[in-house]
Amino acid sequence: MYTLFHHPFCPLSRFVRLALGEHGLDLRLVEERPWERRTAFLSLNPAGTTPVLIADATPAIPGAGIIAEYLDETHGAAMGDRRLLPSSMDDRIEVRRLMAWFNEKFFEEASGPLVTERIYKRFMSEEDGGGPPSMDVIRAATANVRYHLAYIGWLARTRNYLAGDLITYADLAAAAHLSAIDYLGDVPWSEDEAAKAWYQRVKSRPSFRPLLSEWLAGVPASRTYVDLDF
Amino acid sequence: MYTLFHHPFCPLSRFVRLALGEHGLDLRLVEERPWERRTAFLSLNPAGTTPVLIADATPAIPGAGIIAEYLDETHGAAMGDRRLLPSSMDDRIEVRRLMAWFNEKFFEEASGPLVTERIYKRFMSEEDGGGPPSMDVIRAATANVRYHLAYIGWLARTRNYLAGDLITYADLAAAAHLSAIDYLGDVPWSEDEAAKAWYQRVKSRPSFRPLLSEWLAGVPASRTYVDLDF
Repeated sequence: MYTLFHHPFCPLSRFVRLALGEHGLDLRLVEERPWERRTAFLSLNPAGTTPVLIADATPAIPGAGIIAEYLDETHGAAMGDRRLLPSSMDDRIEVRRLMAWFNEKFFEEASGPLVTERIYKRFMSEEDGGGPPSMDVIRAATANVRYHLAYIGWLARTRNYLAGDLITYADLAAAAHLSAIDYLGDVPWSEDEAAKAWYQRVKSRPSFRPLLSEWLAGVPASRTYVDLDF
Repeated sequence: MYTLFHHPFCPLSRFVRLALGEHGLDLRLVEERPWERRTAFLSLNPAGTTPVLIADATPAIPGAGIIAEYLDETHGAAMGDRRLLPSSMDDRIEVRRLMAWFNEKFFEEASGPLVTERIYKRFMSEEDGGGPPSMDVIRAATANVRYHLAYIGWLARTRNYLAGDLITYADLAAAAHLSAIDYLGDVPWSEDEAAKAWYQRVKSRPSFRPLLSEWLAGVPASRTYVDLDF
């Protein structure tokens, strides 16, 4: 049994939930508000960020990338051809490149600022930086979503899944970040049919269902959030 | 033979040089100015960032973390007890945690802004963001160096090397970032004797020598940069 310290709209935590789901692993969720900098949480992860995975008989595992490597090393080989970090070196490089692209670059440029401004700030105290969202930050992040969506569309037109023929961590990372901001209505799906068709396929996987059942009091989900055929 | 697209003062590129050196691998260096966004470089790494490693018979390998995983998968087992990403799961988690701490958090909060403001901006055109350094950015980054140095000191007092008994990627990452900003005189060594003693040990390794021979026209190195017994 695994325990995940997460926030329901943290895109990196969503990636880990998808990764555990695809591995068929059960999960207990503990909601963390990282901006509160809880002492017990900081002792699990001195960086103070979600997600943190607790597994039996290992120290706490902090961060989406490190958790992905851990899951691959403990459960990857048993996945056979469905391994999310495939065995061939070329595939490993490409999957890791795209996983970092979404978990680092997309998070920094788009999903991180959007979730912080539109969701986290509602719950933060004034000292923690709470308050009304910065429209400048939202505008810049929304513009960045468009070029990332075009990149996803380009990948989806040249390949079956983002990193090749089969679904990998690359798809889970991209879809996790998109799902968090799709809730907010921040993904202009009509701009890229190939990206939309790829997302529909990933979204219809059983591992995705728990994410779609996350709703936030006071912030209604966008029209496209739950609909599998949006 | 490996080829590394790097900048001599890019802290992440320095980490990769140390990692290759510790593995005993030869390296050809190609200096890249990532802010110029050279088309041929973007085709190697669409993210446009250094470092990028070119190895025989694989696609280009972008980013310090992905290169570290690649080197471990291709050369790690042959290192035996000196493996830089040790075999036990607990050690792998801790080494990856600290490697990410320095290559992501320290880079974002301290070494990245300092190198950009004090070095890269000298070479950038005005359109690329060149010009005089922002003293506000430098002040904030310098303050961050101090808390990171205290964290390194705390680790060095509790352990022989940062992640445990032996040298690992964690030490190489921390030392690589420190070396880039030590050139600029931005490390207050006198504030932490344990951190300083640990750095002296890492700095005296043969893999470190090529870094210390990097000098920048017009920017003199600090008093402590080359001195092994500073």
